[in-house]
Amino acid sequence: MQKVRVAVVGWGNVGRGAAEAVMLSPDFELCAVVRRNAQPGQVVHVNGADIPAVRSIADADGAVAALVCLPTRLTTAAEVEMLKAGISTVDSFDIHGDALLEHRRMLGDAARRGGAVAVVAAGWDPGVDSIIRCLMEAMAPKGVTYTDFGPGMSMGHSVAARSVPGVADARSFTLPVGFGVHRRQVYVQLDGTRPFEEVEADIKADPYFAHDDTRVMQVESAADYHDTGHGVSLKRYGAAGTTGNQQMEWRIRVINPAATGQCMLSALRAGLKMAPGAYTMAELPVISMLPGGLEEIVKGIV
Amino acid sequence: MQKVRVAVVGWGNVGRGAAEAVMLSPDFELCAVVRRNAQPGQVVHVNGADIPAVRSIADADGAVAALVCLPTRLTTAAEVEMLKAGISTVDSFDIHGDALLEHRRMLGDAARRGGAVAVVAAGWDPGVDSIIRCLMEAMAPKGVTYTDFGPGMSMGHSVAARSVPGVADARSFTLPVGFGVHRRQVYVQLDGTRPFEEVEADIKADPYFAHDDTRVMQVESAADYHDTGHGVSLKRYGAAGTTGNQQMEWRIRVINPAATGQCMLSALRAGLKMAPGAYTMAELPVISMLPGGLEEIVKGIV
Repeated sequence: MQKVRVAVVGWGNVGRGAAEAVMLSPDFELCAVVRRNAQPGQVVHVNGADIPAVRSIADADGAVAALVCLPTRLTTAAEVEMLKAGISTVDSFDIHGDALLEHRRMLGDAARRGGAVAVVAAGWDPGVDSIIRCLMEAMAPKGVTYTDFGPGMSMGHSVAARSVPGVADARSFTLPVGFGVHRRQVYVQLDGTRPFEEVEADIKADPYFAHDDTRVMQVESAADYHDTGHGVSLKRYGAAGTTGNQQMEWRIRVINPAATGQCMLSALRAGLKMAPGAYTMAELPVISMLPGGLEEIVKGIV
Repeated sequence: MQKVRVAVVGWGNVGRGAAEAVMLSPDFELCAVVRRNAQPGQVVHVNGADIPAVRSIADADGAVAALVCLPTRLTTAAEVEMLKAGISTVDSFDIHGDALLEHRRMLGDAARRGGAVAVVAAGWDPGVDSIIRCLMEAMAPKGVTYTDFGPGMSMGHSVAARSVPGVADARSFTLPVGFGVHRRQVYVQLDGTRPFEEVEADIKADPYFAHDDTRVMQVESAADYHDTGHGVSLKRYGAAGTTGNQQMEWRIRVINPAATGQCMLSALRAGLKMAPGAYTMAELPVISMLPGGLEEIVKGIV
């Protein structure tokens, strides 16, 4: 069986997780890593192999698809270009609501033009959790779902905090207060160009933080707080037909970048079986996220 | 919006649960209940409405689809007839492995001939749990998944025990020993035609029970043990890429017939959007199990 050639775009924590997932998969091969600052002839080491590091997806030899591991705000423009060129993409776009819908529409248009597929908002949340939330509603249409994240470091929130002027480095932790309420605890290391109070105010005003109780703490070294463990508990209490007291819970505890990268690869596998367009993970049949023949999976897992 | 007319076939616990789910849905209406012994002009009461009870699906006025709530061993033949006549079906076929594959193939052939859709093995297990097992493998391809049922009454096992000669009534409970090992506790009420030891041996030899530690107890009234509460815990410990210690758990506690009936209806909703053929729930996009517009769901849940 010919393996599908895939590139990883972005070489942060998630990029490394995605690259390792590709290397261990039976049906994909890692053809390149796309890094903004790659030097000619550079390679990166992934699971003992040397993988070419290139500056542009156009230099990723034979790439059919890209796992786009960039900060959310950089994904749309980068993916539109790839999709128009016929390269399928997966991202872990982590803003919900209208912004996600608009992103999905733009990528869908580009994907149909390029004859490619985009899977948006893929990861454990959004992504797997989105599927779980749909499943819970399918089981109990009336009721309430609660999402409780953490304790864990949020990569999206850490990137957002780091982008505030005056911040040299930052780590943002999500702490579950319970039943859908969270506290954000942000450890910031200043670069000396702005006073802490201004940095703190800017972080609290950022859309990533504005809706939650956010506490910003100045620290000597934000890196000392780095831990990639994360988790979530999704609970729904609801009614199936006229019958109440139906209780469901999904609970995970994972290494965040590895889980995100793996989910993105599984989403790509399913996406490549779809017609050109853009899809969230909940729009993809779950069975097609797995390698191997359908009847084998039905026999073994279903 | 025109509602989709659906019949419920079989009027046991699951049939009643399915009928209530249909009555409360925004997009389906219950056109009839199919009962073997229905009398001319008979009605059944569902959520305060009078629903025609008929002997055959052919008498279910305008039925586009049927929720087939019969014992598993009666489903294949009944559904093949309906599918050939162009009526889509959903069942909760609860035998795994080769038997399920064969059932899916037979229904798929009939469905394609009739231009209809069959969703097989729909419910909370198999069905939702099958989706969860696939999702867990998509998140952590290497590792082990454990399924622990109960404590709860198994409808399939109770029906199997009741079908043993000499049994007047029976309730079979599934008890989680832990990490995939179960004990079956069967309460049997004899009809006086056979000694307990023979009944006990037949139950233990039945394929439904043969693989588990099964304990059969003779009781005065099996109905005194009737409780429809049930649940499951699905756990997976695995690796995403090279990263181990990824932990996932799905845990539910439900009223079994209501949950099964609701899952069957949600599966039907998704099935009706597919090309003619037979599908397990894991082959259906989860988002299409919910009523309402896709963009609305993406905005609200994903």
